[in-house]
Amino acid sequence: MQLYHHDAIAAAVHIDHGALAAVEAGFAALGRGEVVQPPILSMAIEESNGEVDVKTAHIRGAERFAIKVSPGFFDNPKLGLPSLNGLMMVFSAKTGLVDAVLFDAGYLTLVRTALAGAIAARHLARTNSRRVAVLGAGEQAERQVEALRLVRDIDTVDVWARRREAAEAYAETMRGRGLAVNIHDSVHAACERADIIVTTTPSREPLLWAQDLPEGVHVTAMGSDSPEKRELDESVLTRADAFVCDTRAQSESNGELKALGGKEAPFKVHELGRVIAEGQRLRLSDATITVCDLTGTGVQDTAIAGFALSRLVGD
Amino acid sequence: MQLYHHDAIAAAVHIDHGALAAVEAGFAALGRGEVVQPPILSMAIEESNGEVDVKTAHIRGAERFAIKVSPGFFDNPKLGLPSLNGLMMVFSAKTGLVDAVLFDAGYLTLVRTALAGAIAARHLARTNSRRVAVLGAGEQAERQVEALRLVRDIDTVDVWARRREAAEAYAETMRGRGLAVNIHDSVHAACERADIIVTTTPSREPLLWAQDLPEGVHVTAMGSDSPEKRELDESVLTRADAFVCDTRAQSESNGELKALGGKEAPFKVHELGRVIAEGQRLRLSDATITVCDLTGTGVQDTAIAGFALSRLVGD
Repeated sequence: MQLYHHDAIAAAVHIDHGALAAVEAGFAALGRGEVVQPPILSMAIEESNGEVDVKTAHIRGAERFAIKVSPGFFDNPKLGLPSLNGLMMVFSAKTGLVDAVLFDAGYLTLVRTALAGAIAARHLARTNSRRVAVLGAGEQAERQVEALRLVRDIDTVDVWARRREAAEAYAETMRGRGLAVNIHDSVHAACERADIIVTTTPSREPLLWAQDLPEGVHVTAMGSDSPEKRELDESVLTRADAFVCDTRAQSESNGELKALGGKEAPFKVHELGRVIAEGQRLRLSDATITVCDLTGTGVQDTAIAGFALSRLVGD
Repeated sequence: MQLYHHDAIAAAVHIDHGALAAVEAGFAALGRGEVVQPPILSMAIEESNGEVDVKTAHIRGAERFAIKVSPGFFDNPKLGLPSLNGLMMVFSAKTGLVDAVLFDAGYLTLVRTALAGAIAARHLARTNSRRVAVLGAGEQAERQVEALRLVRDIDTVDVWARRREAAEAYAETMRGRGLAVNIHDSVHAACERADIIVTTTPSREPLLWAQDLPEGVHVTAMGSDSPEKRELDESVLTRADAFVCDTRAQSESNGELKALGGKEAPFKVHELGRVIAEGQRLRLSDATITVCDLTGTGVQDTAIAGFALSRLVGD
């Protein structure tokens, strides 16, 4: 059994085409029905404003599977600690023995989450997309754009964030990466000329409405990952020509399908894995509006952990 | 963060009164409603005849919580490997940071499972219990008796096992520990004079019936821990004067309440934690028959992991 720590993992695994291919292959296996993926185990530690999630999945026939433990303790910043932590355990799918523990402190989650956004855009956004509106200015606001650049020639970012200073710091970082960045005072203004909109906030109220969507836009909503959070108004879902999610059950419990309040969706709900596996073409023209809701799936964790381990051991 | 391996853990933690008190305190907290204990996460790895379970629980206000991963790969013996493995992660309940990883390979599960049997007997079996019938001859058949000796003056074991050779090997081991041991060819004969009956098999069919129960006996059924397994016929449940389980929901899905096939129980279902917390006296006389169904709970894992860590760091 091998143990790997954050710095070694971060040196070995990047947001690149190899990692993207690994995560995309995981989604495709999910779409082909080749993945066992139990519901997320989730536990609240209320007295510390914390929660811990456990995700796993097994791709049938794969040599290894991963189990990820993600604690989120939202008072940690007051203690000078990051909110998000965690680790991934990699097990032999033949014997159940631990092959490795990746003490990545959440790094691989950042990577696989960003890559899922890029994968969604690859299959849904206009190929000539150049301009991204980003709602939120946290870690994923950076990573999502970094990943999008693997699949589209992004040159401009329009950012809106609840706190102006956060948007300014973000703009500076992204300009340092060769992007034109505009800061906006409203969601509507940020989205007005977007080819792609990425929502990356912990919002508990909708912040994007149908009237914010320009023609032909693709939206990736990756902020909502728990029963309390949501970013999209119901009108965004019904306005979309194609609504895709990573897994329907999770979108209903933790993601944007909660907007329907348990009602039957008045539109077809696609799953990203099947879109990939079946080569579904949901964008019919440059005017098609697509929405992808990402809640985070165990198969992404199993895929990125297996990929990380193969990079780390050099096979 | 500290890492501990099997041998160090097995040297520090034993089936003793200290460990028993820790697990009993966990059950009592559960009984007082002070424990957050999400449903077990379970995933099958069918092509390897394997499964992996994740259990966790948090005792409100406790400094730490544990998450246990238990793989069971039942073709491993053909490869010269044990079927059961696993590890426990101990997290700070204040920050979510990993305090320690206990690579115990299932050792602490053996201990906390045996201790739960002793705790059940302490609260349910006659105080003058001396004679134990053990069904099954595996690891828990040994550990359960070892733990029972903490709470009752056990001097005689009556063993029945599906394979005669297994029963003989078991008898030799237990005689080496100063016990009188009788091997029986039938469950009924093994149980005939028992003060306590412990069922420790992976049976998928009932093997204990009401007519096997002597007056005043206490039964601990600890073998069934999954939807397929069961050891007690429904007649045992209805014959009992008091039926106790570790958690009702788990007994219904993974334990002996499955015998009811989803019907409403025609008897009161007690939970061990509340029996302890409220000092319930379910044994009214030397003729009372008590049954306790143990499926294994996250709070036992959190309790034993915290105890182990305190022993290991010497606090």
